[in-house]
Amino acid sequence: MKPIDYIKRQNMITDVLKNEEIDMLMVPPSINFFYLFKGYLGLSERLICGILSPSEDSILIAPSFEKENMQIQTTFDEIVTWKEEENPYLILKNALSSRPKKIALEPSTPFEIYKRLKHQFPEASFVDAGPIINEFRSVKTDEEIQRMVKASEDTATGIASALDIIHAGQTELEILKIVQDQMTLNSGETGWALVQIDENSAVPHGKASDKKLKLDSVILIDAGTSCDYYFADITVTSVHGKPSQEFLDVYEIVEEANNKALEVSKAGVPAEQVDFAAREVIDKAGYEKFFTHRLGHGLGLQVHEEPYIVKGNRKPLVSGNVHTDEPGIYIPGKFGIRIEDDVLVGDKSKRLVEFDRYLWK
Amino acid sequence: MKPIDYIKRQNMITDVLKNEEIDMLMVPPSINFFYLFKGYLGLSERLICGILSPSEDSILIAPSFEKENMQIQTTFDEIVTWKEEENPYLILKNALSSRPKKIALEPSTPFEIYKRLKHQFPEASFVDAGPIINEFRSVKTDEEIQRMVKASEDTATGIASALDIIHAGQTELEILKIVQDQMTLNSGETGWALVQIDENSAVPHGKASDKKLKLDSVILIDAGTSCDYYFADITVTSVHGKPSQEFLDVYEIVEEANNKALEVSKAGVPAEQVDFAAREVIDKAGYEKFFTHRLGHGLGLQVHEEPYIVKGNRKPLVSGNVHTDEPGIYIPGKFGIRIEDDVLVGDKSKRLVEFDRYLWK
Repeated sequence: MKPIDYIKRQNMITDVLKNEEIDMLMVPPSINFFYLFKGYLGLSERLICGILSPSEDSILIAPSFEKENMQIQTTFDEIVTWKEEENPYLILKNALSSRPKKIALEPSTPFEIYKRLKHQFPEASFVDAGPIINEFRSVKTDEEIQRMVKASEDTATGIASALDIIHAGQTELEILKIVQDQMTLNSGETGWALVQIDENSAVPHGKASDKKLKLDSVILIDAGTSCDYYFADITVTSVHGKPSQEFLDVYEIVEEANNKALEVSKAGVPAEQVDFAAREVIDKAGYEKFFTHRLGHGLGLQVHEEPYIVKGNRKPLVSGNVHTDEPGIYIPGKFGIRIEDDVLVGDKSKRLVEFDRYLWK
Repeated sequence: MKPIDYIKRQNMITDVLKNEEIDMLMVPPSINFFYLFKGYLGLSERLICGILSPSEDSILIAPSFEKENMQIQTTFDEIVTWKEEENPYLILKNALSSRPKKIALEPSTPFEIYKRLKHQFPEASFVDAGPIINEFRSVKTDEEIQRMVKASEDTATGIASALDIIHAGQTELEILKIVQDQMTLNSGETGWALVQIDENSAVPHGKASDKKLKLDSVILIDAGTSCDYYFADITVTSVHGKPSQEFLDVYEIVEEANNKALEVSKAGVPAEQVDFAAREVIDKAGYEKFFTHRLGHGLGLQVHEEPYIVKGNRKPLVSGNVHTDEPGIYIPGKFGIRIEDDVLVGDKSKRLVEFDRYLWK
């Protein structure tokens, strides 16, 4: 696959910093750190912080014993290190050639790190860097789409294989493990999954339990594996045997809502319109109160990211956005049906992967 | 095992809030949320926030479609929900019976959440709740120690089993998977691991790679599985065959440093003294510059937490602290040796698990 160009990403950001008169961007380990500087680092109590500014070299602040490791894993012009007994925030301050007045801070930065930075730079104003970075992250490049197509294919195939080998008597937790294993067999990366059986499927985001699959059980599998850390997010709702007439009736409505949303999604359309399109189908069928969540969300390095497909988000979609299309009808005490695809926005939007969902046939 | 008493934990915190004249504590999903309110929830773009105050009932703010799920997973007096198209920060504000003047914020709260809270409560001062919560979290109760002993036993046994079945030709990544699987066989929970072979072991925190195990390779395994989310953190450095004389010489020094630190660790001793004790052994042996990190860190719901065993931390240890004891000597281009135990502080501190480490014998 075509490699990711981190320097290009950094340059896009520094151009914006310049335009917005922001002196620097500070980025502790996070998805945005990975997006800009390559290292997929965990956040810990030891300060690591990447710094970009319009006029200076990029700097990484890191523990001295991790220097070699950081040289391998990240991409900076300069690495400034601190020793275990030193104050890393003071080292950071001293590493800068000037006193920043306006600092953009990575949005997931822990409050305790912000407080310590504020202590070193009491006169600086701190703004949320989220909007700046998301503007780029939400528009996928060809390199990114390649990875997301592969992740989607591996996920769809993994779910289908799992449905093929599970059997009555297995629990949600056991099936969850099977789904993860089947996806990983394809992708070589780990993945996440939700597995919900019968009435449990009526609780969105419910945790897998010891509930067992039976003959003719409804089974909802919401899962995703990744490719180079780019995620897929697909939901299949199936029946382990013969579906009831009620299930088939509701399935048809959710399927129509899913198709309708795909039809409406395209560059230039306000995000909320895509939600409205699916909701209209479900409302008309009389299931209004059982579609309890937004239609979808953007997808990429995170399973939830911009653009959000929700009432109130009037921002137009743009080519290169990838969003989920996941209408659902959840009937308490009975079952829930969700059909979820990952959609690439263009003049005509399309699913990242097409596959046969009628797995009970 | 004895169940965890969440209400007791909440009461301990509200007593402190009262004493410090803090109007409320706000806690988005995090380890501290789990510690106080039971739900092991992921942080997402949808606001979830637990609120404790000295005078009011505990409140959870959560998306309406997750209400049932939250009732199952968490423990609050009241759950206030918001709909997908609503502003959750406004709902939060309106749910409070008074305007807080001083708010303690969970330390890992993302900057973007802090900014939105600040926007709703512009006149409130926000303080870091970390010190308040850590004071309790760093002192383990019997219920917690039970769990940590089991996690340590499962980790030690898992590492030993892995060392028993690996063979030359396998890569670090393959062995990592074996270590995780062996630990999970014991604990039923997942775990993390670092596996480093030969010269790679000289890079602390280095990532597992395709490097292969050979006959007489040095292999460093740093791993931990959990019990009810309480972690262990154990490092074994071994040789897959016959150790060199240099390895044996260095091993003896690291072992002595590890034993010396255990001897010095006890209630009332400033944390840094435990670091000094181990460092003195290594310094005297002439390996000063190869022991590049602090001696250890606290352990519990997080793999790194208070108390940190590092120069500069003069806070006395107290009975019930659990900390790692992990001296290491890292010789670039050759090998690294780290011996890591988890130590329970008391009048006489002791390891959570004792096991035979001479795995090359």
